[in-house]
Amino acid sequence: MKTFQKISRPTLIVNERICRANIKRMADKAKHSNVIFRPHFKTHQKLLIGDWFRDYGISAITVSSVSMAQKFANAGWDDITIAFPVNFRELNLINELASRIKLNLLIDSSDAVEILDREISSKVGVFIKINIGYWRSGIHFIDSGQIDKCADRLIRSKHLIFKGFLTHAGNTYHARDIEEIRYIYHHDMKILEELAQAYDEHAPMISIGDTPSCSIIEDLSRADEIRPGNFVFYDLMQYKLNTCSLDEIAVSVACPVCGIYPGRNEIITYGGAVHLSKEAIREQNAEYFGWVVSYNDDGSHELITDTKVNALSQEHGMIGTSNIEFLESLKYGDLLGIIPVHSCLTANLLQESMIII
Amino acid sequence: MKTFQKISRPTLIVNERICRANIKRMADKAKHSNVIFRPHFKTHQKLLIGDWFRDYGISAITVSSVSMAQKFANAGWDDITIAFPVNFRELNLINELASRIKLNLLIDSSDAVEILDREISSKVGVFIKINIGYWRSGIHFIDSGQIDKCADRLIRSKHLIFKGFLTHAGNTYHARDIEEIRYIYHHDMKILEELAQAYDEHAPMISIGDTPSCSIIEDLSRADEIRPGNFVFYDLMQYKLNTCSLDEIAVSVACPVCGIYPGRNEIITYGGAVHLSKEAIREQNAEYFGWVVSYNDDGSHELITDTKVNALSQEHGMIGTSNIEFLESLKYGDLLGIIPVHSCLTANLLQESMIII
Repeated sequence: MKTFQKISRPTLIVNERICRANIKRMADKAKHSNVIFRPHFKTHQKLLIGDWFRDYGISAITVSSVSMAQKFANAGWDDITIAFPVNFRELNLINELASRIKLNLLIDSSDAVEILDREISSKVGVFIKINIGYWRSGIHFIDSGQIDKCADRLIRSKHLIFKGFLTHAGNTYHARDIEEIRYIYHHDMKILEELAQAYDEHAPMISIGDTPSCSIIEDLSRADEIRPGNFVFYDLMQYKLNTCSLDEIAVSVACPVCGIYPGRNEIITYGGAVHLSKEAIREQNAEYFGWVVSYNDDGSHELITDTKVNALSQEHGMIGTSNIEFLESLKYGDLLGIIPVHSCLTANLLQESMIII
Repeated sequence: MKTFQKISRPTLIVNERICRANIKRMADKAKHSNVIFRPHFKTHQKLLIGDWFRDYGISAITVSSVSMAQKFANAGWDDITIAFPVNFRELNLINELASRIKLNLLIDSSDAVEILDREISSKVGVFIKINIGYWRSGIHFIDSGQIDKCADRLIRSKHLIFKGFLTHAGNTYHARDIEEIRYIYHHDMKILEELAQAYDEHAPMISIGDTPSCSIIEDLSRADEIRPGNFVFYDLMQYKLNTCSLDEIAVSVACPVCGIYPGRNEIITYGGAVHLSKEAIREQNAEYFGWVVSYNDDGSHELITDTKVNALSQEHGMIGTSNIEFLESLKYGDLLGIIPVHSCLTANLLQESMIII
């Protein structure tokens, strides 16, 4: 592919056909499940890729920071949920955004609702973030006292609109198998349905988020809204979870070969921790930072067997291989592709070095 | 400090006084050891911080990519070593740089020297990269056949100038104690001296790099040149290696508090993997991504005991604490400082979000 000849530095290769298929599959599932599809844009962060979603009927999105909300609001997205506990140091920007778009925030304590209610100057939707088992942010679902306090304050507020209950089952990323992901989904939905039931008269929404559940569960109709993000690219972590196939991974990092060491079956690429991130897959006594592919002339790629990124330093990728045929075929300046472990972190690092094929 | 009031997002706080003391200490040691001090600029990557080095007599620098060389060359640095195996996909830029500054490259195979000799159009210095025990790039020191081939070709070349032997003892980062760092240093120096001896008539330089050795060894005169980089900031990894004190760490990441969970002794900060990097310290059954400090009014900071960053997701930092007094004093929107595990990766992520105090 001609585009590849010009690549001289680590570059994220985004396959538009695969991305669009991933978006369409999730959009179709949402439609068929009768849930709102509010994709998380933190994975790609790109206006151009955001535009692809519009072709599948998407008009509401999720982001993970106020600055990301500002970026997409400035590009015409006018219905945005910031899926991160309110950062009160950015209240001015939050107020500015709330004055011009439909903005949703999330809170997870009555103290936070109180400050927000006092400081906000335009109408904003507010979800109560619920912790069901991921133990990151959120009020634990058992703590009905705290949930009641938040809901009551929201219901009485002038500017805050009680939207419902939101959760992110990040614990699915640690599931042993698909059955455990299914278990987490149904376990969480039961709890969220009971919560929603208790506030029936205010018609609270149930919003869920994680890519593993949204990829595995065929019928998502127990929720009102889904917010997966990673599915647009997928990655090695999802593949290891069995939540995507290798063919559904839409990204790789093209890296120049700068060192070839036949004596020790190793290769050095220009492509290190500042390009891939240090996110690793850790298995029994093994740790690796990516799988390796070779590019075909049409830009598609093939997995190189028995070959992994074993270590990363700032700019170096250290590839180990027992595929001698592959090793012997390599030349200085060849391009290898690396399938990243966690595409969200890799895409964040390569925002300025991305090619769409 | 007034500057801190304006911080609304994760921001790298760089303490100029500590940086300058770190630079001065290393510059003094280099002078006293009669070695060239060619600091590695990959840690900070900032033109302003580069300027501080000039005040201590530095005029030659090291970088880890061709683009970094270009950036500093454009800012007036005219003696630069790119301490990374030659990326032949950037030959045009390498030639352009070689035509206007004193440029040094490194190679680690006779194939690479041959291509370089054929393709380079201006004079460049070339080091043979030697692998003594880090097993990243480099010709293994035992492989005298390959070293000879490289040296011979360099000596006969029109444009390539044989500069000497260069190593990076990255294995010091895995040393159990200071004694092991000392052992690695003297072990490596003996090998490099013997190599240099064999090419005596060409007066090859010995260039060494790692911050642990350069911090620990009092007299570095067995080398001709030192290229440490991390020492300008230091970090938790160096502190755990006993190669710096806590007071010598010049950076922290100021992060807004966005979640407070007294029931489970946890805190959420806005400040995650895209700000700190996923580099972790791993000890028996424990893994953490930073230590936590509180800021004083003058911008200095104090360590908060029994408090660590236990997990990171894209934008979230999850802090665990058993310091109840600290936890009870926290309010939404407070700023906490995080001492990063690996300042090179953190500074790379926060290039656009850095404050000098």
